Amino acid sequence: MTEKQEIYNLCVELFPICRSITGNGVRKTLEIIKNHLPALKTYEIPTGTRAFDWTVPEEWNITEAYIIDPDGQKIVDFQQNNLHVVGYSVPVNRTIDLDELQAHLYSIPEQPEAIPYITSYYQKRWGFCLPHNQRKSLKPGQYQVYIDSSLSKGYLTYGELILPGQASEEIFLSTYICHPSMANNELSGPAVTTFLAKRLLDQKDRKYSYRIIFIPETIGSIVYLSQNLPEMKTKIIAGFNITCIGDERSYSYLASRYGNTLADQIARHVLKHLQPDFISYSYLERASDERQYCSPGIDLPVATIMRTKYGAYPEYHTSLDDLDFISPDGLYGGYNILEHCLMCLERNEILKTTVLCEPQLGKRGLYPTLSTKNSHKIVRNMMNLIAYCDGTNDLLSIAEIIKVPMWELFDTVDILKSHHLLVSA
Amino acid sequence: MTEKQEIYNLCVELFPICRSITGNGVRKTLEIIKNHLPALKTYEIPTGTRAFDWTVPEEWNITEAYIIDPDGQKIVDFQQNNLHVVGYSVPVNRTIDLDELQAHLYSIPEQPEAIPYITSYYQKRWGFCLPHNQRKSLKPGQYQVYIDSSLSKGYLTYGELILPGQASEEIFLSTYICHPSMANNELSGPAVTTFLAKRLLDQKDRKYSYRIIFIPETIGSIVYLSQNLPEMKTKIIAGFNITCIGDERSYSYLASRYGNTLADQIARHVLKHLQPDFISYSYLERASDERQYCSPGIDLPVATIMRTKYGAYPEYHTSLDDLDFISPDGLYGGYNILEHCLMCLERNEILKTTVLCEPQLGKRGLYPTLSTKNSHKIVRNMMNLIAYCDGTNDLLSIAEIIKVPMWELFDTVDILKSHHLLVSA
Amino acid sequence: MTEKQEIYNLCVELFPICRSITGNGVRKTLEIIKNHLPALKTYEIPTGTRAFDWTVPEEWNITEAYIIDPDGQKIVDFQQNNLHVVGYSVPVNRTIDLDELQAHLYSIPEQPEAIPYITSYYQKRWGFCLPHNQRKSLKPGQYQVYIDSSLSKGYLTYGELILPGQASEEIFLSTYICHPSMANNELSGPAVTTFLAKRLLDQKDRKYSYRIIFIPETIGSIVYLSQNLPEMKTKIIAGFNITCIGDERSYSYLASRYGNTLADQIARHVLKHLQPDFISYSYLERASDERQYCSPGIDLPVATIMRTKYGAYPEYHTSLDDLDFISPDGLYGGYNILEHCLMCLERNEILKTTVLCEPQLGKRGLYPTLSTKNSHKIVRNMMNLIAYCDGTNDLLSIAEIIKVPMWELFDTVDILKSHHLLVSA
Repeated sequence: MTEKQEIYNLCVELFPICRSITGNGVRKTLEIIKNHLPALKTYEIPTGTRAFDWTVPEEWNITEAYIIDPDGQKIVDFQQNNLHVVGYSVPVNRTIDLDELQAHLYSIPEQPEAIPYITSYYQKRWGFCLPHNQRKSLKPGQYQVYIDSSLSKGYLTYGELILPGQASEEIFLSTYICHPSMANNELSGPAVTTFLAKRLLDQKDRKYSYRIIFIPETIGSIVYLSQNLPEMKTKIIAGFNITCIGDERSYSYLASRYGNTLADQIARHVLKHLQPDFISYSYLERASDERQYCSPGIDLPVATIMRTKYGAYPEYHTSLDDLDFISPDGLYGGYNILEHCLMCLERNEILKTTVLCEPQLGKRGLYPTLSTKNSHKIVRNMMNLIAYCDGTNDLLSIAEIIKVPMWELFDTVDILKSHHLLVSA
Repeated sequence: MTEKQEIYNLCVELFPICRSITGNGVRKTLEIIKNHLPALKTYEIPTGTRAFDWTVPEEWNITEAYIIDPDGQKIVDFQQNNLHVVGYSVPVNRTIDLDELQAHLYSIPEQPEAIPYITSYYQKRWGFCLPHNQRKSLKPGQYQVYIDSSLSKGYLTYGELILPGQASEEIFLSTYICHPSMANNELSGPAVTTFLAKRLLDQKDRKYSYRIIFIPETIGSIVYLSQNLPEMKTKIIAGFNITCIGDERSYSYLASRYGNTLADQIARHVLKHLQPDFISYSYLERASDERQYCSPGIDLPVATIMRTKYGAYPEYHTSLDDLDFISPDGLYGGYNILEHCLMCLERNEILKTTVLCEPQLGKRGLYPTLSTKNSHKIVRNMMNLIAYCDGTNDLLSIAEIIKVPMWELFDTVDILKSHHLLVSA
Repeated sequence: MTEKQEIYNLCVELFPICRSITGNGVRKTLEIIKNHLPALKTYEIPTGTRAFDWTVPEEWNITEAYIIDPDGQKIVDFQQNNLHVVGYSVPVNRTIDLDELQAHLYSIPEQPEAIPYITSYYQKRWGFCLPHNQRKSLKPGQYQVYIDSSLSKGYLTYGELILPGQASEEIFLSTYICHPSMANNELSGPAVTTFLAKRLLDQKDRKYSYRIIFIPETIGSIVYLSQNLPEMKTKIIAGFNITCIGDERSYSYLASRYGNTLADQIARHVLKHLQPDFISYSYLERASDERQYCSPGIDLPVATIMRTKYGAYPEYHTSLDDLDFISPDGLYGGYNILEHCLMCLERNEILKTTVLCEPQLGKRGLYPTLSTKNSHKIVRNMMNLIAYCDGTNDLLSIAEIIKVPMWELFDTVDILKSHHLLVSA
């Protein structure tokens, strides 16, 4: 099976689970990911734990939920689609008339066939989500509303995978696992991240260490930061928030707070060369965990790489963001961008020539010995690389200056190093 | 009476006075302004006083001036329009023929109905200004020319108002009072400045002190600087030169020498949001007191804010720059820009969040508790403000970064400070 | 005879000589230049001398070379055009069939009438260059190939002219003399440089010293740098590589490695004002001695000024780059740009006003005493110059800021200095 199909299949496997920011859905999700990454460690953070300005909430679990209409029909059923219940709904078992029910219903008039995704983590509520067309068809009368959920002391669960490299400096990957059955936002993120981690595990000569986390969004990143900040600030040289990375509509980059970190530079470089039509979003348009990673005092060098950005596609946060919205090609396209980013980070370093003036490439067999009208162009890239290896530029900057994809220079760097014409500065 | 009508009425009251860079016209003008600003102090600087490269000239006063034509008609009369006499004309009482007279006449062929405004402060001359059409109608013959003026040891007069604030740092406002009967250049300046000063006097909690001066242009600013420079350089954080601020044609900003002072930044920010079509002039196009305030070694942070710039309207420096050229709306539009600039300066400060990661706004009632598809946008501005309160940006910079008018953030800053989520850095 | 005709005539005189990177052609070229510049010193660097990563090669000389076709006709004759022989060809005297001959022939199918210019300095080869049409007409049969050349221990020859000035800081001019009979690339370079040097010799009050070299390209600049680097790095404040400066098609500038040296700034300033349509090339498009002068660790402030850039005209490196391709006007246009560059360098300095606020120009007779509507503009340039003489800008920067050609400020600077209103900072 191809890797791209495997990434898609992981999404399929994870899709039915009812995830939230806490609860068994998160645990089940991490168990499935562990099948691919046995070294993944799971952490359980108790309800009530303080995390900066926040507190880990009660754990939420749910087994059943439905509405029975005046005709006795089960019309809105959590078993059919877990988006039907407002996330973190408190339990309820009542019979109420339609007017009262309406105050607990959520639908989208502009997308009458879509079930919206609604949560209420920090205010106790109950509610149901349904297609607007279905809502309009509800007749007056008595409705039974039933939610068998629990909110109680428990844990917030997340997964962490540390891959040691030759250096203690780390590259950081973060993705989230707190949404119920939606595909691009969110399963594309953990699926692509899982396979990036597998690829890194296969790579024996990793220069950098890797910190890869699967967390609930917002509260999860805040909790993780509150428990790991000093180490993260010391070690992380670049990181990516991975989300909405499975559709085929576009490629996107969202900048860090000032857009000037190594992660930003690498992301823009890779996207510019591989997907020149990519969309560049400013930090003002953020809405994912970059909000925490790039907040004042945290200041981690983290950029977000996406296919079509959360909020920028109409299916976002509805039942229309399903397994048909993503695809093996869509996922693999995003995977490919991130793989290039990691490869570029691994190879990035400051380089310095060892000779004054241009080296004589000819005596080393690196230059055509017959000077013809076009021969200058043949070794142009090699000469340009050497020209900017002055000890002030990293390879990324040189690639930008000489306008070539960084990866087209890797072989040349190796050759010049083997001839002792370049050294790491 | 509305404030805008009051500003216009002050122009009307000041219009008939024959002002120059010295003399009783300046004193009379300051007396009228004192009716509005009793705390205004008047200074008299003696003729001969050195001011950097300059010397205070003799004081000029004039009572009467006219030409009597060969038919015995009084044809060019200072009583009709004080522009008829070249400023600083020496006294004369002669009968001369038309040819000799022509060498002392000034008119504008392209504006045949306009009386030009001409001065000769530092070279002794006499002359008359008249509409070109009138000049063309002069018949050969003997003309009596009479100017009853005096040039003698006296004083250069200016007004200064210091408004103390909580801080000793000052905001500086400068306007000039040395032109005879012209409205936009110049009465709009002192009239708007007078009402800005009145507004500041009404504001009890001024953060900054204010230094507001009414001076003759060029020699006045040079004299004032020569007597106050060390204090001004120590205290002034931003200032505005106020001129040509009463017509309705456009809004304009003229940069300081390098265009990079706080005054420049505030002026551009306010104009961009309130009058996006404003015209931005470089320092190369200067011709008012910014020439002195921004000169090398003086280097005060002063920008000029105008409606239509001096020299950019054909009525400039002619009798057509009259009370019809300005209007209550024109004046108030300029007043409003300057008022916003002062308000922004008063509220500008470096801010810092008190928490790591995003604060939990919900528990403070600052965030919608139900997460819907659009809820992120509701608090977007508040979150963006917090995101850039990292101790490196002042509020002006943050407003620029997050692309909102600074004043739309004032309430939010107050709320977040009251919740101890933001503090002054 | 006009100077422009003299420059052209020097090209005509130098044209027939068969130059290469070593040999008697270089010596003969320098002898002719010495007729104009008796102070030019010639240096001989022995074969085998190390120069950074390079070694001075054997000296190449040639007396005769031709091909005799099966009919006994001399068809490709070095006496007719020295481009017919591949530069640095080893001697040969054989009779071979057409097939074997073909492997030693060079022609350009797209330019069937042109003889290409081909060299093989560092790999021993022999070969002939000829028009493609001629090559196509060769019949099968036996051909005699004869090259009477020698490759042996000898010298690399170059010329150096040092013109002392008031200061020990130097301006550096470099041009090359290693191409056989081609006009734009290369004789335009040494011819224009020779007459620039003559002009400098006539100028008695040179502020800077001048280092002017006539070298073989690449190996010559590397050898020269290897023997003079410490002095050059200490003294040279700006320099120009002079090549392809004799045609009439365009004006061009090629930047130093980062495009930010004084030479770059001066070159862009002069070209912008004199030839606003000039073409600006990045360092990525380099192919001349800037490759050495701007290499890492060398880092000399050298830009290249050209008419039509090497490689950017189809006649380049062929027999079509002949005396018809250049012209007296073409050469003099390039000479004029460089002359302005040198004049601007000589006059460039940091200036400072001596007074606070604007000086009173009127009392010095520098300002119209009658203030009219347009009088501000009359002295605008003088006032703008003074405004930016704040001790932080050199005259070049001021000219850029106030948007005038630097040379239009020279007289004003002199006047203001004579009035002690400006001083050198």
